[in-house]
Amino acid sequence: MPSIDFFYEFASTYSYVAAMRIAPLAKDAGVAVRWRPFLLGPIFKAQGWETSPFNLYPVKGRYMVRDCEREAAANGLAFRLPEPFPQNTLMAARVAHAALEEGWGEGFSRAVYTAEFAEGRNIGDPATLGEIVSALGKDAQAVFAKAQTDAIKNKLRAETDTAMRLHVFGAPTFIADDGELFWGNDRLEAALAWAARAKG
Amino acid sequence: MPSIDFFYEFASTYSYVAAMRIAPLAKDAGVAVRWRPFLLGPIFKAQGWETSPFNLYPVKGRYMVRDCEREAAANGLAFRLPEPFPQNTLMAARVAHAALEEGWGEGFSRAVYTAEFAEGRNIGDPATLGEIVSALGKDAQAVFAKAQTDAIKNKLRAETDTAMRLHVFGAPTFIADDGELFWGNDRLEAALAWAARAKG
Repeated sequence: MPSIDFFYEFASTYSYVAAMRIAPLAKDAGVAVRWRPFLLGPIFKAQGWETSPFNLYPVKGRYMVRDCEREAAANGLAFRLPEPFPQNTLMAARVAHAALEEGWGEGFSRAVYTAEFAEGRNIGDPATLGEIVSALGKDAQAVFAKAQTDAIKNKLRAETDTAMRLHVFGAPTFIADDGELFWGNDRLEAALAWAARAKG
Repeated sequence: MPSIDFFYEFASTYSYVAAMRIAPLAKDAGVAVRWRPFLLGPIFKAQGWETSPFNLYPVKGRYMVRDCEREAAANGLAFRLPEPFPQNTLMAARVAHAALEEGWGEGFSRAVYTAEFAEGRNIGDPATLGEIVSALGKDAQAVFAKAQTDAIKNKLRAETDTAMRLHVFGAPTFIADDGELFWGNDRLEAALAWAARAKG
């Protein structure tokens, strides 16, 4: 079965829309998805950016909020920009890696995005993350303990390093088995079609 | 009939793809298009950029070349990045305004884009522009003389000022009658659908 890597960052608005769309589209395309949460911060820093481009370029940032509203609405999703923006996503990304190892990382990731961008909640707040974990039937304290082990911390660092090595510069990014890279929620269908063509 | 403003810059790769696609799509949607060539340079400068973001962010720039190749190919168009990139587009934009006043500006704009991005020619070279104008059955010397009148120079300056005032930050940009703004070739269909909905 062909596959794609789905690199996503919890602070990324367009990753939210992609994360909510990807599972059924990939299933229809016959493409397996590897969910790979990473941190954009180090990658933006390498480009000379100290914060989100939404904030660095206010005119473009205001447009992107509007565009995200439209893209979300076109997919039946609510959209609100949380405060602060961008959010601190370090703990969410660590928990996601811990959860992915146990098979509930996709659902966790969608729940984080819904809290953050549909409900406008602060997912940098451990209390919010704890509620999300508990609602998925998991022990928040045990999950947080695992998320802060060196193994998980190093996994997240390695994923971010891998993303940079693969020339990821933003999120979401989709990479097919042959290395073909697609950036942006609006390239999800093209990425899946590319990956599916490689099947034969 | 509803309409949209189509702000385009001859140096913009994605404007090329949009310019080659927009006429039949707009006709099918029942939307009139106002072709509005402008200069991105002053707008990029206001954002602190001295050149194209393709050049400022090399990893992203290399991706965007590949993405343009794919977007062009998906629409049956060739794609080559001309040397130098970005091109000097001042004269092409002035000639486009002169030509639009006379009703042949759309065809001229498509011909410039084809020379630049399908054939990789230097459209900053007056000889190239002269060939394009002549091939359209016009007197190049007379057209260039008109393009360098104060009236045309001021028209192009005013269009660039208008674009900035309307919060245009990149190209192509589409603006519906109600002010709704869409950025990027990949938002062309959404912009036309938005404009067409406003019809009723």
